[in-house]
Amino acid sequence: MNGELMAAEMAEQPEVLHRLVERRDEVAGRVRALMPGSLAGITLLARGSSDNAAIYGRYILEMAARRPVGLGALSIHTLYRAPVDLSGYLAVGISQSGETPEIVTALGRLGEQGACTVAIVNSVGSALSAVAGLTVELGAGEERAVPATKTVTATLLALALVAKGLGVVAWNDTELGSLPDRVSDLLADQGCAETVAALLDGADRLIVTGRGLLLAAALETALKLRETSGILAEGISPADLRHGPIAAVGEGFPVLDFAAEAADPGAAELLALLRERGARVLTVGPAAGAACPLPRGLAPALLPILAVVRGQQLAAAVARRRRLDPDAPAGLTKVTPTH
Amino acid sequence: MNGELMAAEMAEQPEVLHRLVERRDEVAGRVRALMPGSLAGITLLARGSSDNAAIYGRYILEMAARRPVGLGALSIHTLYRAPVDLSGYLAVGISQSGETPEIVTALGRLGEQGACTVAIVNSVGSALSAVAGLTVELGAGEERAVPATKTVTATLLALALVAKGLGVVAWNDTELGSLPDRVSDLLADQGCAETVAALLDGADRLIVTGRGLLLAAALETALKLRETSGILAEGISPADLRHGPIAAVGEGFPVLDFAAEAADPGAAELLALLRERGARVLTVGPAAGAACPLPRGLAPALLPILAVVRGQQLAAAVARRRRLDPDAPAGLTKVTPTH
Repeated sequence: MNGELMAAEMAEQPEVLHRLVERRDEVAGRVRALMPGSLAGITLLARGSSDNAAIYGRYILEMAARRPVGLGALSIHTLYRAPVDLSGYLAVGISQSGETPEIVTALGRLGEQGACTVAIVNSVGSALSAVAGLTVELGAGEERAVPATKTVTATLLALALVAKGLGVVAWNDTELGSLPDRVSDLLADQGCAETVAALLDGADRLIVTGRGLLLAAALETALKLRETSGILAEGISPADLRHGPIAAVGEGFPVLDFAAEAADPGAAELLALLRERGARVLTVGPAAGAACPLPRGLAPALLPILAVVRGQQLAAAVARRRRLDPDAPAGLTKVTPTH
Repeated sequence: MNGELMAAEMAEQPEVLHRLVERRDEVAGRVRALMPGSLAGITLLARGSSDNAAIYGRYILEMAARRPVGLGALSIHTLYRAPVDLSGYLAVGISQSGETPEIVTALGRLGEQGACTVAIVNSVGSALSAVAGLTVELGAGEERAVPATKTVTATLLALALVAKGLGVVAWNDTELGSLPDRVSDLLADQGCAETVAALLDGADRLIVTGRGLLLAAALETALKLRETSGILAEGISPADLRHGPIAAVGEGFPVLDFAAEAADPGAAELLALLRERGARVLTVGPAAGAACPLPRGLAPALLPILAVVRGQQLAAAVARRRRLDPDAPAGLTKVTPTH
């Protein structure tokens, strides 16, 4: 196989995203109709790749709804079964398969305890849909490669559509509509991923950073690199990196940095600090001189979707150079049950 | 120095915890008086070691208040400065120094936008106190070693005292009062940490797991090991471990598992899976046969405080065996500013 499945599913992304974009008004309308009269807050439930999507959701849902959004601690509901009053809450469960048992259990319990519940799933008729008040189907088609790709970008976009139903968003329909073509453009430009992958020859560790909206892309890229290439990639926010793990960064240590277009003094300061320690910093972003470019001028809230595609390309390229099969990494299966 | 500072500060913990226990009614009463009439939710703000404490807080505050608790995305307030309506919210900022700039900025903004604000700090007269409606001082005295120890366990206990002010907690005063002596007992029993440290000779990687209430102890132990010993320790929940990083676990790979007293089929299943892959699983917990024992019969919600002490002992023991100075790891300073 050698990555053919993953490559084919990555290539489906423009079409999958296009179909979702077409449903933007329908999704926003259904979310608007479901919303509690007075929104107390939003809780997101997710695991694995979906957890990274939830971290993106935390930003865009909070900025649209203007009420706090948190990631739920699943064990409170699955292990301790503690009573929690969810009235006034919107709970969003994210599971590609719709069958992750702890997400199903937790979303069901949150609904029983008063939350309005939304399931974001790829599979029609899944267990998660059965416990949710509203289901947003990704319509991405079956995903067969173990590393999730098209379902991840589709989940990010689905969260953006949900955000639109909750309030005012920081992008317009033209920008949203341009996403599929922009993803096509990125997929046609694989060269930078090959170049960065070559720079990582021999590296067994990598730190991947990204701030704010781009943190999700950093975490997802790190997860994808670990799954496909065996490289010990760690996704972390720049601030948390400074609070400890930077101690491990020495001469030649590779750092992949997802950087937004807007100037960010905090990020610039961290980069200077990393370079002082001799780190090899490789940038993904719209800035001139980025090792992997992203388009300029797009709403920052939509940029993470493109950034995740760059991460997929990089993970696939590293795996290819290391003669590993990213379609079926050792020891991983697609649905991961936990009780 | 060679760890003398860290050892001395670890040894102060029973006294620090004792002083905090004595203030339990005062702290709970002040929190009760501050609480909004109808609580919409709780947001925690933290970084680094305090972030691990916040993960503990997420559980015990939600289980006591019976309203959702989330960890705030700081960049929403510090980088994007997005408007968010915090009415009905309790916001708790945690910073040992009370000077972490992004925590100060974010807590201040949350207060301006309607939240009741609490600062948990060690330093009297800090910037974080100045923006908070109520300050819970740890009273742990100056902490000079770079790896935070006494301020971490004091922060966990402070969160437990805040929880008491929010509702019904799952421990009684006798259990709370017994904590300082239990910590003394652990500190007097250093042998198991030495034994486990010896088993880790030559290991450059380690996975540290813990579920639910014990996740915070796992994350904190991983951070401490990285700071003091250079070992690449990663804290992760068992469920997230199964969703990807388990692929890296092969023959002889060390896994440190914080395990509660109650039977947990999910955890047992993961351990079986890890052992199947040849992992060397070392357990910290009250169960018979644990590599590092914890006392039996204590309320599960208080056990993480003791578990964190075991993690400190282990980090110090590994550093000693590797002839490293845990007091001042290369490249780290105590207050970490980010903009």
